[in-house]
Amino acid sequence: MSGLRTIEWKGGCVTIINQCTLPHCLEYRKIRDVRAMWKAIRTMQIRGAPALGAAAALGLFLGIKDAPGNDRAGFERRLAWAGRYLATSRPTARNLFWGLERMQETFIRNRHRTVAEIKMVLLREARRIVEEDRLACRAIGEYGARLIRKGSRILTVCNAGALATIDYGTALGVIYRCQEKGKSVKVYACETRPLLQGARLTTWELKRSGVDVTLICDGMAASLMRAGAIDTVIAGADRIARNGDTANKIGTYALALAARYHHIPFYVAAPSSTFDLSIAGGKDIPIEQRPAHEVTGLFFKKPIAPEGVKVYNPAFDVTDHSLITAFITDRGIVRPPYARSIPRQLKKK
Amino acid sequence: MSGLRTIEWKGGCVTIINQCTLPHCLEYRKIRDVRAMWKAIRTMQIRGAPALGAAAALGLFLGIKDAPGNDRAGFERRLAWAGRYLATSRPTARNLFWGLERMQETFIRNRHRTVAEIKMVLLREARRIVEEDRLACRAIGEYGARLIRKGSRILTVCNAGALATIDYGTALGVIYRCQEKGKSVKVYACETRPLLQGARLTTWELKRSGVDVTLICDGMAASLMRAGAIDTVIAGADRIARNGDTANKIGTYALALAARYHHIPFYVAAPSSTFDLSIAGGKDIPIEQRPAHEVTGLFFKKPIAPEGVKVYNPAFDVTDHSLITAFITDRGIVRPPYARSIPRQLKKK
Repeated sequence: MSGLRTIEWKGGCVTIINQCTLPHCLEYRKIRDVRAMWKAIRTMQIRGAPALGAAAALGLFLGIKDAPGNDRAGFERRLAWAGRYLATSRPTARNLFWGLERMQETFIRNRHRTVAEIKMVLLREARRIVEEDRLACRAIGEYGARLIRKGSRILTVCNAGALATIDYGTALGVIYRCQEKGKSVKVYACETRPLLQGARLTTWELKRSGVDVTLICDGMAASLMRAGAIDTVIAGADRIARNGDTANKIGTYALALAARYHHIPFYVAAPSSTFDLSIAGGKDIPIEQRPAHEVTGLFFKKPIAPEGVKVYNPAFDVTDHSLITAFITDRGIVRPPYARSIPRQLKKK
Repeated sequence: MSGLRTIEWKGGCVTIINQCTLPHCLEYRKIRDVRAMWKAIRTMQIRGAPALGAAAALGLFLGIKDAPGNDRAGFERRLAWAGRYLATSRPTARNLFWGLERMQETFIRNRHRTVAEIKMVLLREARRIVEEDRLACRAIGEYGARLIRKGSRILTVCNAGALATIDYGTALGVIYRCQEKGKSVKVYACETRPLLQGARLTTWELKRSGVDVTLICDGMAASLMRAGAIDTVIAGADRIARNGDTANKIGTYALALAARYHHIPFYVAAPSSTFDLSIAGGKDIPIEQRPAHEVTGLFFKKPIAPEGVKVYNPAFDVTDHSLITAFITDRGIVRPPYARSIPRQLKKK
């Protein structure tokens, strides 16, 4: 268990953990209006598909909570605007739209009530979304933990933990559940460039929960698999199409390819709110393009991982000859079979 | 052509480009003794397998150049020590050891001469290694360019350019040769965590040579291939075993796996000095482990890429359902075929 509460309705406003200041400072921030929520989502102070479902729903409520009770048309306009506005914050995570749709449907079901009543119902619905996510993560953890053997070495990417949900996580929920059941596991966390959610968030929350975690750069994962050091990969998801194609943090696909090549199971852990049956396959999932300075800037001036975190840092990896089309050498192109062609080529003068 | 000269014998000492200050500052450094050369190699002020062959040979000469002419035994001890010492600087690149061996063999062939004569012969040999590398890179460029079609989109990793050799490059030599022949290509450079040689060095040298280059994070490469945006991958090499297994910068293996999956040719460009016939396969290649702070520290306080470099920065990628073993959801485990199992699972209450 992480003991964290990433997003919460408390004292008439939303309190979130500001994920931009981690791992250096655990800072809670109060979000009091819909514009502040939009900005918190866009700047990734709050992120992770399930957390965004709750953030969108609570954000929508913030957008209408101060609407005057005697102006029904004004209330409906404000509700519609807040929904459209929040939908522009980030495009990929299904849960964000799912949260907005749930609120919209709740409104439609309760349209016959007074504005004050509708507000109450909408707040209740947003809080229900929060509670359902907590339960969903525990169910995911329970189902997932059954797939994991004691002592397993699990690779994960980005942060699909307490910080990506309300308080437990999807991929990391599986790991927390293993831990609760006394099934110790070893986790490798991909740092997840460019924004380093793996280095900054996953190692931080696993470490504070006493899980054995080692940080790697993204390009090291395939090499670890080749070394036989990974038993299972578990990723979260931002949107899952009807056929199972899954959008998740950039880099996930490369891990899935490497896992397949090494016959390592590759699991996606996600609540049902991440599935999008309206989309047939992955090519229809909108992919967010983010600014260049995230890649060129390394705007994390301080260390990017918790003090003392374990790190695996080999400078090189080995590419199996079977994957190399040809060598381009100063003595010409060398093609397979290499066991014959390489010695022959090198003996030439 | 890059117009750079990465390592050179000039005015009685070795001049190198200090690669730790790039892309912010093109700084030339004079290396006057063998300890300074060891440190320049260890701290990666000079790096890249072919450049290390020249650095080791020139470093060895620095180690004996001031030995007194009248103490033959002392000279031989000093030569042997300098060779052993330089061999401890970094373990993986074959060329470093190859350079030292060439110098050692030259010494043995000339053992009958005076100390002063042997010094002259050793300097000549080190400079020959430098010249041979220049020619080898041009030959690699010429052979490689024949494999590349005009307009090709080429992915590369780390820096296998002028900065990794004497002045032209291996993988990037192929690209420079394409450019010289008027065969324009488009290059994607993986940033290459942790030390970011792709972001700092490859984009810098390609940009100043007018090559169209776009920077990506390492985890984005597979996704670009999936999008059909890559025609060819060209990597350098640090050591190539007799069977063709190739050690190169960490992350190369993941690119080779992704290239294979997408039926994209994966070429390794390297001079014959990088091949190690004494090693049967990749598992015998020593892999350098480097300090944790390179991963956790991001000790590049300034931007990590040249001003204005093009960047591709999608926040997500899509993993094909065929690569996913199962979904772990709050409603249970969902297994293939997903087109049936996902809608069925979501309809459950």
